[in-house]
Amino acid sequence: MRFATFQAGGETFFGAITDAGAIALNDALPQHDSLYDIIAAGAFDQLAAAAAGRAVTHSDFTYEMVMPNVRRILCVGVNFPDRNAEYKDGSVQPKYMSLFPRFASGFTGHNRPLIRPPENHTLDYEGEVAIVIGKAGRRIAAEDAYDHIAALTLCNEGTIRDWVRHAKFNVTQGKNWDRSGAIGPWLVPFTDAAQLDDARIQTHVNGELRQDDTLDRMMFPIREEIAYISTFMTLQPGDVIVTGTPTGAGARFDPPRYLKPGDVVEVSVNGIGTLSNTVEDETV
Amino acid sequence: MRFATFQAGGETFFGAITDAGAIALNDALPQHDSLYDIIAAGAFDQLAAAAAGRAVTHSDFTYEMVMPNVRRILCVGVNFPDRNAEYKDGSVQPKYMSLFPRFASGFTGHNRPLIRPPENHTLDYEGEVAIVIGKAGRRIAAEDAYDHIAALTLCNEGTIRDWVRHAKFNVTQGKNWDRSGAIGPWLVPFTDAAQLDDARIQTHVNGELRQDDTLDRMMFPIREEIAYISTFMTLQPGDVIVTGTPTGAGARFDPPRYLKPGDVVEVSVNGIGTLSNTVEDETV
Repeated sequence: MRFATFQAGGETFFGAITDAGAIALNDALPQHDSLYDIIAAGAFDQLAAAAAGRAVTHSDFTYEMVMPNVRRILCVGVNFPDRNAEYKDGSVQPKYMSLFPRFASGFTGHNRPLIRPPENHTLDYEGEVAIVIGKAGRRIAAEDAYDHIAALTLCNEGTIRDWVRHAKFNVTQGKNWDRSGAIGPWLVPFTDAAQLDDARIQTHVNGELRQDDTLDRMMFPIREEIAYISTFMTLQPGDVIVTGTPTGAGARFDPPRYLKPGDVVEVSVNGIGTLSNTVEDETV
Repeated sequence: MRFATFQAGGETFFGAITDAGAIALNDALPQHDSLYDIIAAGAFDQLAAAAAGRAVTHSDFTYEMVMPNVRRILCVGVNFPDRNAEYKDGSVQPKYMSLFPRFASGFTGHNRPLIRPPENHTLDYEGEVAIVIGKAGRRIAAEDAYDHIAALTLCNEGTIRDWVRHAKFNVTQGKNWDRSGAIGPWLVPFTDAAQLDDARIQTHVNGELRQDDTLDRMMFPIREEIAYISTFMTLQPGDVIVTGTPTGAGARFDPPRYLKPGDVVEVSVNGIGTLSNTVEDETV
């Protein structure tokens, strides 16, 4: 089962995605306005039930960012050992993870262009697995953490690299350019720990493999991310955690290999899918 | 005119605040569910019109966080010259401002307790002016920036100081503890540049003056904050910018003077009001 937000005929729908096309489910869950609202209301299971046996409603559609109105997105930085080493500051495994929020406006959907702004051309890719919280919790124990995940999706945590270093602290302004990243294509229900524990993530640019790693090598496993974050804030259904990117972003090459118009970036995880985006210059 | 979110008789209302009490305006604007939704819909002027001539509906009420469902809050860090000097890294005026998002869940309302968690007792205050965007814009010129502000309010940008330094980058985990800060008491319409340009901000703890400065001394004036932020993201009505705190937070004393249960923190600006909060230990 795969659930997405999509556009067809000038309207926006939420629903299920099949190999034959999309099944709009807005009529089946009229009390909810969006995929995010369904999950926030704890009604994700109803979506799967509603999809069962329904026929495809749209064979011609375009994907939106998977939850365009998601309220909270938290990203984990520098979470693979080789990436930490890339910072060349002699640091070993840090004691705590690095975290930064991103706004939903920073992301577009599957098969849509990442936008390179005229101010700066260091647009870079970061392939990541994103989890969607399904059950609220505070001070969640790591061993219980997976019980709080409703669904998985993919993120290209696109970054304007030069702007990450603008400020003394914080990467905010390099991480929140409008539509500089992407989340999607869809949500896959999380039903089995192996979906994360055995996951391999790969990022290709124009068909060339740039990132390739397994989630079991994370310095801070997803269970610990949920435990740590929920220490300071109550996680709510619909919250998204972008779990960290392997080594191999464009900034790590010498000279850096930033994205340029016409490039195609694909982030893939077996069992979740492939998030594909082109790159376009912004028209101002 | 002052507009707030408040609770009375177990219900939540939005409306106007007068010296005699609160005027609930939910019936007057039934198409909107909250103060935030009104501003996001560009209907802030309707609120003032609706309040005119109405009688007080509630003399007994409690304040909520001024916009509990606000989607985006961006804070400006280290924005007064003495605060920059406090970092003792020999830096002069930085080229760019430091920015970090906070989630709405990190804030409570006027006259409610800031929550000190059991994990760490370095709860600290930071008095700040917050602005609420009223008109969308991207790449807003500094000289036009004030045209995009709908309203002003106050923020105690409460921080768990030790956790700000957990990560190599980013202050996220020290800045997002549930109800560790406050925003309110109310929104004051922004109608005159002097409301900001001539503003003096003071923070008292148990009656003792701890922070006292004027906004004209900001390293990055509010006009520049709006210009810079809107370079990378489209500002939307309802967005909040917390504009920076003067020197004098508890961490800057030797030894540090962190908040403890029973303390009263008051953030005041002439023409906006006073945001007052007590401090309580969390009951886990």
